[in-house]
Amino acid sequence: MKPRPEGLFSFRPVGRVRSPFKRPEDIPPPAFAPPGFFDRARGELRVFKKYEPALKDTEGFSHLIVIFVFHQASGSKLQAVPPGQTERRGIFATRSPHRPNPIGLTVVRVLGRRGPVIRVSGLDLVDGTPILDIKPLTERDRPARVRTGWIRT
Amino acid sequence: MKPRPEGLFSFRPVGRVRSPFKRPEDIPPPAFAPPGFFDRARGELRVFKKYEPALKDTEGFSHLIVIFVFHQASGSKLQAVPPGQTERRGIFATRSPHRPNPIGLTVVRVLGRRGPVIRVSGLDLVDGTPILDIKPLTERDRPARVRTGWIRT
Repeated sequence: MKPRPEGLFSFRPVGRVRSPFKRPEDIPPPAFAPPGFFDRARGELRVFKKYEPALKDTEGFSHLIVIFVFHQASGSKLQAVPPGQTERRGIFATRSPHRPNPIGLTVVRVLGRRGPVIRVSGLDLVDGTPILDIKPLTERDRPARVRTGWIRT
Repeated sequence: MKPRPEGLFSFRPVGRVRSPFKRPEDIPPPAFAPPGFFDRARGELRVFKKYEPALKDTEGFSHLIVIFVFHQASGSKLQAVPPGQTERRGIFATRSPHRPNPIGLTVVRVLGRRGPVIRVSGLDLVDGTPILDIKPLTERDRPARVRTGWIRT
């Protein structure tokens, strides 16, 4: 099959997030969150029953990467002024939900797993967020030193 | 609009990877790669012209997260034996391309940008890989201490 990189790629959620944050407004931008705010935010990654076997061994990792859909984001932008900022930034230099493809990524801490449910902390997602993928966080994802441009947190 | 978390989400590539690796077989599994192999692997993230404004400020970051499609992966599995391993692992505890949704994630180092082209190192992607999203790597993505389960690299 010839790859069609320009084509449309369709994905189906493998589960959903259970979160104390019911609406996007309940989640402060990182720059405005009190220290430790997200560390205290606990919730669950719940995969649909048929994907439970795919979670085997996830509990061996301290952190998981969640790839999700910003399902409540409407409209995409190429540039935006981040909350609390004055300068317009390229959207690929931000974590804004208003992206060409409304795909999000967050790193959560694993607290434990029971069957298809992983309890996590460090959650900054809205309740009901569709999960597209879960990946183990490895050393390769964690460069020793980073420079984070305009982002101060 | 009522969110439909069970529905299908469709995304269109925003660009493509230029890489020295022409085929998946050219990319060794991390556990088998010589030390520094991926640090030396240089290539480009090329967004389509209309997305060039979205790249503004990306050059301020030392590392970017690339979310892409495993466009050459065929078939998804719930569990698999990783290369060089003997035990079957849940696919969400691996970085295998054979996932329920063939979405990949890699962290690259930014070398420079010219217009719609970002030169990077640390690339482990095949030439032509469709890019779905580019995000800045922030401190929140980089926990101080991690435990990486069965993965030794």
